[in-house]
Amino acid sequence: MAGARSAEPPAELRLHKRLTPGPLICTGQSRYSWVLSNSPGPAVQLRAMDCKNGCVSQCTGPGGPKGALETFKAKDLIITPASTLKEKPDPETLVFGTVFTDHMLMVEWSSECGWEKPHIKPLQNLSLHPASAAFHYAVELFEGLKAFRGVDNKIRLFRPRLNMERMHCSAKRATLPGFDEEELLGCIQQLVKLDQEWVPYSTSASLYIRPTFIGTEPSLGVKKPTKALIFVILSPVGPYFSSGTFNPVSLWANPKYVRAWKGGTGDCKMGGNYGSSLFAQCEALDNGCQQVLWLYGEEDQITEVGTMNLFLYWINEDGEEELATPPLDGIILPGVTRQSILDLAHKWTLHIPTMDNGPPKLASRILAKLTDIQYGREESDWTIIVS
Amino acid sequence: MAGARSAEPPAELRLHKRLTPGPLICTGQSRYSWVLSNSPGPAVQLRAMDCKNGCVSQCTGPGGPKGALETFKAKDLIITPASTLKEKPDPETLVFGTVFTDHMLMVEWSSECGWEKPHIKPLQNLSLHPASAAFHYAVELFEGLKAFRGVDNKIRLFRPRLNMERMHCSAKRATLPGFDEEELLGCIQQLVKLDQEWVPYSTSASLYIRPTFIGTEPSLGVKKPTKALIFVILSPVGPYFSSGTFNPVSLWANPKYVRAWKGGTGDCKMGGNYGSSLFAQCEALDNGCQQVLWLYGEEDQITEVGTMNLFLYWINEDGEEELATPPLDGIILPGVTRQSILDLAHKWTLHIPTMDNGPPKLASRILAKLTDIQYGREESDWTIIVS
Repeated sequence: MAGARSAEPPAELRLHKRLTPGPLICTGQSRYSWVLSNSPGPAVQLRAMDCKNGCVSQCTGPGGPKGALETFKAKDLIITPASTLKEKPDPETLVFGTVFTDHMLMVEWSSECGWEKPHIKPLQNLSLHPASAAFHYAVELFEGLKAFRGVDNKIRLFRPRLNMERMHCSAKRATLPGFDEEELLGCIQQLVKLDQEWVPYSTSASLYIRPTFIGTEPSLGVKKPTKALIFVILSPVGPYFSSGTFNPVSLWANPKYVRAWKGGTGDCKMGGNYGSSLFAQCEALDNGCQQVLWLYGEEDQITEVGTMNLFLYWINEDGEEELATPPLDGIILPGVTRQSILDLAHKWTLHIPTMDNGPPKLASRILAKLTDIQYGREESDWTIIVS
Repeated sequence: MAGARSAEPPAELRLHKRLTPGPLICTGQSRYSWVLSNSPGPAVQLRAMDCKNGCVSQCTGPGGPKGALETFKAKDLIITPASTLKEKPDPETLVFGTVFTDHMLMVEWSSECGWEKPHIKPLQNLSLHPASAAFHYAVELFEGLKAFRGVDNKIRLFRPRLNMERMHCSAKRATLPGFDEEELLGCIQQLVKLDQEWVPYSTSASLYIRPTFIGTEPSLGVKKPTKALIFVILSPVGPYFSSGTFNPVSLWANPKYVRAWKGGTGDCKMGGNYGSSLFAQCEALDNGCQQVLWLYGEEDQITEVGTMNLFLYWINEDGEEELATPPLDGIILPGVTRQSILDLAHKWTLHIPTMDNGPPKLASRILAKLTDIQYGREESDWTIIVS
């Protein structure tokens, strides 16, 4: 179960310390081909626990702006439309993140002047001083969310405030400046509206939105940057994996590599978490797997999959069925899809004895519910209508 | 004792497991104002041990180029001189990494075409697609070395091959392509020669050389990049700290933050190691300290200082004097200065009973030796003469 992630402190289903049954304790070159959510059983039991050490709690320390929060404003947007528009691709042939729309959002910041007015411009290269902090010290973070074209032809964003919150948390961790989350969301809505014809006319594709925040300090001291840039680009996408949305993803687990650790930045969506993961990802591909299953600690606890959170559906030692996911203990990225599955599961618990499609199809049920909301087959306050 | 670092598997002086005496075990908000190398004593005892788990051993896995090593060649350099040359700054007023010379080196790579010919061009902004991997996933690494103007007016690079080796290791860890280290060094020598008037006429300043290697893949999938760029910029510098080369640096230790961990990238000079460090660095500054002393593990073992390796000089439990530094166990950056101090100390051990300036002045002696070599007061095979 893959997808974007949020900063919201979620309920937890199980401590990940217990997510290490025999077959998951990995040795050097173990390989798992892992099909999610295909175990049979009559019930899903949830155990809620508030997050005690998630990303939000890390936002209260130093590094963020002092005093009143300065921000840019969506109402100040300056829009420079592209003079020519590109041809839209066939939604069936999209490769994730390779095609971009006609426009992008850019907002510049400096410690001297604060935030400049936001600009929507034709998609263009960034021109940056070669000493910029983002090139040398990975002062950078990003988000990923999507706009969906509904069966009613309306365009919806899925829980975008969770992304804005998480982005704000990541910014503080990276010592990048704060901003008003609603104002950035307002700018993004205008960008999507301008490029709305790029939202695929398809219920198996969407428009991926990539907010990015980089330090542009043009000097080489290792320090909090005095210049920064938020930019947002848009890319029409199909499923992240070429194997499709709902087909099994094969996983490679090698305890030699560790994605994140306590005291680090694993719970923020910072660039450094990803560049350091590529070596293991190459090893996975070399061994015929699609993604890395990241392990942690002496007991090789499972934590995340390369680009997503993970859930386990199983029968526990007491014969009960459980849906389980690692807790937000500081090394897990708080995913929006993760949060949404937890929220649905909590709600559904009440109805489990009478579930129509039954636990064996739990993953199908979750997917159906989420896509019903995303593509407007079901009304929900989880979406924001852009146009 | 700060400075640049190398990939060379060094001898070790002490296991860092033993570098945690009472006063160095840190609690939440402990603060240390730490003056290096000012303990008295009659002898330096070294304990050599080969590195078993350093950066070099990590270079043999996947992610690097397959088959024959493709490279660019220094003899193919295309030089486009700047039409106007900037005024050189006063060496006494330099702030680290803020002023850059007239030219830069750029070498582009793609999986399709391999390495392009290297170019020396006027210093200029980089123009990059906003989806470039370096902005989103910190596919990036750097090096830092220096050119010194000797008392004989010759310009020397200090142990540059150690930087080239380490850069090559970092590149493999980042899944960036390989290159011939001697060819990059050849290009850098030509760049320094072209901008040689920027090498300060001073024996307390130098020309800092910053090779940088970034992924420029213009798409959003998290994967090994198919496009990349090496660039090198030059900056005349005084001491890294405004407090001077040989004055004490105050350190802030808070075990809440961890710089690197086993299975991560702490032994490579990748950007992600630095962006994730800024939050703690801000906390240090907020508390009146200059740098972070990074701790690791349940016993709060000391590992590194923010931008440098560290050495301890002390009298051990047996009453012997020791020079100690954490071993290259996968979380320590293998520094060139670290390696040079180890090399000097090994050599000097033979003469300790008759050392003229005595162990109380060990740090001064090391500094004097290194600068004698760097500024050409002493001949050494640790330097390469550029011009």
